[in-house]
Amino acid sequence: MLQLTGPLGLSGAMADWDLVLTNARVATMRDDSAGYGALEEAAIAIADGKIAWLGPMNKLPGKEAQETRSIKDCWVTPALIDCHTHLVFGGDRAPEYEQRLQGVSYEQLAKSGGGILATVRATRDADIDTLYDNGLRRLRALAASGVATVEIKSGYGLTVASELKMLGVARNLGQASGLSVQTSLLAAHTVPPEYAGKADQYIDLIINEMLPEVVEHKLADAVDAYCETIAYDAPQVAKLFRAAQDQGLRVKLHADQLSDSGGAELAARFKALSADHIEYSNEAGIRAMAKAGTTAVLLPGAYLTLGETRQPPVLQLREHGVAIAIATDCNPGTSPLCSMPLAMALASRLFSMTPEECLAGATREAAKALGLAHDRGTIETGKRADLAIWDIEHPRDLSYWMGRAPLRQLLIEGLALS
Amino acid sequence: MLQLTGPLGLSGAMADWDLVLTNARVATMRDDSAGYGALEEAAIAIADGKIAWLGPMNKLPGKEAQETRSIKDCWVTPALIDCHTHLVFGGDRAPEYEQRLQGVSYEQLAKSGGGILATVRATRDADIDTLYDNGLRRLRALAASGVATVEIKSGYGLTVASELKMLGVARNLGQASGLSVQTSLLAAHTVPPEYAGKADQYIDLIINEMLPEVVEHKLADAVDAYCETIAYDAPQVAKLFRAAQDQGLRVKLHADQLSDSGGAELAARFKALSADHIEYSNEAGIRAMAKAGTTAVLLPGAYLTLGETRQPPVLQLREHGVAIAIATDCNPGTSPLCSMPLAMALASRLFSMTPEECLAGATREAAKALGLAHDRGTIETGKRADLAIWDIEHPRDLSYWMGRAPLRQLLIEGLALS
Repeated sequence: MLQLTGPLGLSGAMADWDLVLTNARVATMRDDSAGYGALEEAAIAIADGKIAWLGPMNKLPGKEAQETRSIKDCWVTPALIDCHTHLVFGGDRAPEYEQRLQGVSYEQLAKSGGGILATVRATRDADIDTLYDNGLRRLRALAASGVATVEIKSGYGLTVASELKMLGVARNLGQASGLSVQTSLLAAHTVPPEYAGKADQYIDLIINEMLPEVVEHKLADAVDAYCETIAYDAPQVAKLFRAAQDQGLRVKLHADQLSDSGGAELAARFKALSADHIEYSNEAGIRAMAKAGTTAVLLPGAYLTLGETRQPPVLQLREHGVAIAIATDCNPGTSPLCSMPLAMALASRLFSMTPEECLAGATREAAKALGLAHDRGTIETGKRADLAIWDIEHPRDLSYWMGRAPLRQLLIEGLALS
Repeated sequence: MLQLTGPLGLSGAMADWDLVLTNARVATMRDDSAGYGALEEAAIAIADGKIAWLGPMNKLPGKEAQETRSIKDCWVTPALIDCHTHLVFGGDRAPEYEQRLQGVSYEQLAKSGGGILATVRATRDADIDTLYDNGLRRLRALAASGVATVEIKSGYGLTVASELKMLGVARNLGQASGLSVQTSLLAAHTVPPEYAGKADQYIDLIINEMLPEVVEHKLADAVDAYCETIAYDAPQVAKLFRAAQDQGLRVKLHADQLSDSGGAELAARFKALSADHIEYSNEAGIRAMAKAGTTAVLLPGAYLTLGETRQPPVLQLREHGVAIAIATDCNPGTSPLCSMPLAMALASRLFSMTPEECLAGATREAAKALGLAHDRGTIETGKRADLAIWDIEHPRDLSYWMGRAPLRQLLIEGLALS
């Protein structure tokens, strides 16, 4: 189990602040500041899990703090946010990964029961404890890479019971791990074998049987879908999204990953929190996303693992002012990736994103993709004290280096995760 | 400082073995065995830093061991070997990395003093302690990724004093870190600014002034050179290699990275330990490498960071039976990479190498690239007890996952690195 620990010593009830970090170099990542929003020689005061004060050391008010800690030579950034994962799943697909590299074709693998349906079978068969334990290992790896908030999708169950099981495990992980977990119902991930050729009926099942349960038990924070020729078409997704919004749930979309299916426009039409992948999105769709305030979520781990060559339209996203987030897409088939700094390093190399964009994409913009920008994603007074403290010389180092683990400490609502 | 620690308790002088690992799943990576050379339900006995016995648990001789440790559910592989690094250097090039992604061209950066010559200036200016401390941090990251043997090149000094300084730091790192460090004199890395247009004179300087010092003080285990249009041509490299071999030193070559410079054939002509990069090598060169026993060292970190699209000729290397090693190429300009499992994961994705080839490339074949196959690189009786113990379900997981740190323990000559 992951543990959160606070300052040692007496209760802080009498102190104004629980913790003050001093001698800090801070990348606030504030939206209205240039670049990293850097402050040197700064202090951050934390009270009740929130940032109570932030500014230059020499202006730090003379208040009482339960603990004061100098973090000279370190940088503080907002704790990282992984806004797109499928990290609860049964089995893994390493044998299939190996077979593919040994020359077995996708067709042969599909015929022998491989691909996403192998994960569906393994997830349906897995008991809750196994799903929980394996999910916790992946969460732990993400936390060790500096992540405090993680989105987890369902989508490997595809039955009422097994989709609810996945979401329940994700909720349990959120309650027990110390990390903040957001969940998305992705029942429309692929067409379940029982509904082959009957995708419309399955959409009705999601709407009529899954959604009410999910809403009643507050199992999901959003509804996601996969819009693609190999999954669901735009009318099916639209029907699902209308039902989700009728229930008060926000929506997100796997869009235009393998072809231009009009996914970006569809997402924008529903003012989706995010449109994810979007390698093939067209300019009209991107313009619509900008207008709707829909965040683009780019997933370099899947791009690399699938050997894609069509880059997401970063130049157009910039031009139209679409917020760009980055995520691991942690999943067993196309992105076995458990590190946000590595996702940043890959995005800078594969998508020519600047280190500043990569850090914003892993903090401020990722918060937008989850509808959480009001309380996290930047270092500002009043926001959650979710902070990553790094042994680095500059925030750009997080995108520059690959395969280093420069996290010194992760604070979640002001408490150290250990 | 890294520390090596042995079994607790009384001296092992009276016991037959120092340590016995039981209930192990072992990927021996023996050359003569199929696949991973896997043994299940196995035991490994270690004495005097070497593997004293290896085989099925039920055949373990009834000898006395100072410590017996069950490692059920773990896999043991040979400790990883990083056979090509430039990890001793001054400064870093993160600002330049960032500028490039912000749209500054290579030409502009070169004009403003960027590129490799920036690292040369910073390395010349750096004192020994700084070079040592920063090198140790990178070695530590490699060790945390499962690496016990690391090759370190000079090549950022390009004067007699500063090349010797770099090699001295690398030797010190080897003596103090607990890792096994091999050093290569790479004075012919680029043409130093003082010798612009006079590369032949600089080659003479290497031969007449650097080599004798290096040999007298045993500062290098091999001589390396960069054969490329932007560095040294084949006759210059040949002259240097002849001098090196006259002094009893083995040679290695940075070959055919950016163009077909006949590097593979040149390396083979001198029976080089390895030809490294080789994206552009031609088939005759590969055939010559096979005949000469020259190992190919592939460097996916540089390929990714430079955005290369010309893949190394893996199919031809396989066809002609050339040993294929993988390395990080850890360096500040083109490959800021400090993890061998990540190098493996990248090689499988970028070069379509199988996970088995990637693990062999990071162990058995990497040992060949350093001329150390006699005592490491596989798990066999009589070899060094350099072992990596992993929390994984199968050795292929090391190439499948990205950004996880599944190392449970690293043993170097039977002692745990901590």
